Amino acid sequence: MTLFHGLSAFPITPADEGGRVDTGALAGLLGRLQAGGVDSVGLLGSTGTYAYLNRAERRRAIAAAAEALGGRTPIIVGVGALRTDEAMALARDAQEAGADGVLLAPVSYTPLTEEEVFQHFVAVADASELPLCIYNNPGTTHFSFSDALIARLAGVKRIVAVKNPSPAPEAAQARVAALRALVPEGFALGYAADWGAAGAVLAGGVAWYSVVGGLLPKPALALMRAAQAGDAAEVRRLDAGLAPMWELFREYGGLRVVYAGANLLGLTDAQPPLPILPLDAAARARIGAVLDGLGG
Amino acid sequence: MTLFHGLSAFPITPADEGGRVDTGALAGLLGRLQAGGVDSVGLLGSTGTYAYLNRAERRRAIAAAAEALGGRTPIIVGVGALRTDEAMALARDAQEAGADGVLLAPVSYTPLTEEEVFQHFVAVADASELPLCIYNNPGTTHFSFSDALIARLAGVKRIVAVKNPSPAPEAAQARVAALRALVPEGFALGYAADWGAAGAVLAGGVAWYSVVGGLLPKPALALMRAAQAGDAAEVRRLDAGLAPMWELFREYGGLRVVYAGANLLGLTDAQPPLPILPLDAAARARIGAVLDGLGG
Repeated sequence: MTLFHGLSAFPITPADEGGRVDTGALAGLLGRLQAGGVDSVGLLGSTGTYAYLNRAERRRAIAAAAEALGGRTPIIVGVGALRTDEAMALARDAQEAGADGVLLAPVSYTPLTEEEVFQHFVAVADASELPLCIYNNPGTTHFSFSDALIARLAGVKRIVAVKNPSPAPEAAQARVAALRALVPEGFALGYAADWGAAGAVLAGGVAWYSVVGGLLPKPALALMRAAQAGDAAEVRRLDAGLAPMWELFREYGGLRVVYAGANLLGLTDAQPPLPILPLDAAARARIGAVLDGLGG
Repeated sequence: MTLFHGLSAFPITPADEGGRVDTGALAGLLGRLQAGGVDSVGLLGSTGTYAYLNRAERRRAIAAAAEALGGRTPIIVGVGALRTDEAMALARDAQEAGADGVLLAPVSYTPLTEEEVFQHFVAVADASELPLCIYNNPGTTHFSFSDALIARLAGVKRIVAVKNPSPAPEAAQARVAALRALVPEGFALGYAADWGAAGAVLAGGVAWYSVVGGLLPKPALALMRAAQAGDAAEVRRLDAGLAPMWELFREYGGLRVVYAGANLLGLTDAQPPLPILPLDAAARARIGAVLDGLGG
């Protein structure tokens, strides 16, 4: 299994109120993902609250993950930052601390142009020797990559993969094929937004970057393996079983749900960084019922 | 003239490639605004690239501004940050370094709920003794305040003003009146988005938070004084003169335009923080022509 293929599980990064990472709790979460058999760990993704952690804490988290995983599960690390020089430094840190690849989102405050995003990616790809995956996450970055920009970036050294939002099910075949036709052989098309990713894999995608996989690796892996085998009927069956989880994600946001889930499963007491609030008791009860139903 | 009333001029914050603020150049820009007679300076607003500067540099900028302005022009300082604890620290820094008020935007990565924004504002308002203006800037923060949320925040100690996007001209009277009816007497309704703010002031707004005012204080002040005097015909005449500038703002974004303008006027050689790119020669030529036409 090459990097940027298969199920990449995106866990939370347990930290205290001041943003100090709890490396022990993180190692516990990662051991569980490794035991579950995930193909890679997506450390410091959006759900891993990379945007809320400073450079020193991000580096501590990577070093702790590298030690916990012992080289047997590859680590993809989010290195997004508002400033280009900061993202470059984070990419260098990731390499030095033991990451296998980096994931770069065009974090924005002032809305960015396509050329600004292109130059930003070239600079960060050049800052380390790690392969880079384009993190196209318009819901948080407020920048949406055109297929043409992805194709242009796919020609840059070390930029070898994309993590796209999942297309609508009825458009998945056409969307995956259209992008596939624009990028080099071997450029890895991966998908996020948990409730559509299996469909995108059935349509030819090679990776699922999964929030639910960071909490519940077993049902996520079962779904991914069915999609990789091209078994559409099994994908439908397993996806239907996860539907109550997708509903919670849409209602509360995946990040708030998986924090509550990790608390309910006794994995960590950590809460999201303020201003993001923990979910209330009613929401937690709903999440608990869904976890019980999934055998979580 | 009380704080959060009148023309608040929002300059760029000149800095080098590494994000080190050029306090000498900043003092020069501020002296020009003070000489122009602006009612306040909006330091470290969106155009002042607060989101791209670290805490130490933001504090240096405030201290330099306080020294340059000598207490004769009030300073409103942007204290937005992704984390609540960071925004609280920035508010304390602002008070200690000589600010007269703070401006708080709900900077987001994970999209925020209304309750999360409310709690964030309560915490930051409580962190210093300075009066606070709500910075409602959906184009950069991706959070849009409802009138109901502004009214709820207006009941919190020290939250005394709002900087809203300017309403569409045909809706200005109704929108300003609707919000006015929801907030306490004395709560200051101010407007940004330069091309509509004078209309909102004619409709009853009391402040214009102005990007163009941070570069060209004299034409901005003339427009604001006409709006404050209720002289709609003069507002139309002066606003028409600034129309070529509004067109550039809409096309390139105000921040890129005022950096180029400050370069062309010989005020500073500073460029925007990467990934934001300087405008190209053709755009700069257009900006130069508009500045010549305005007698800038």
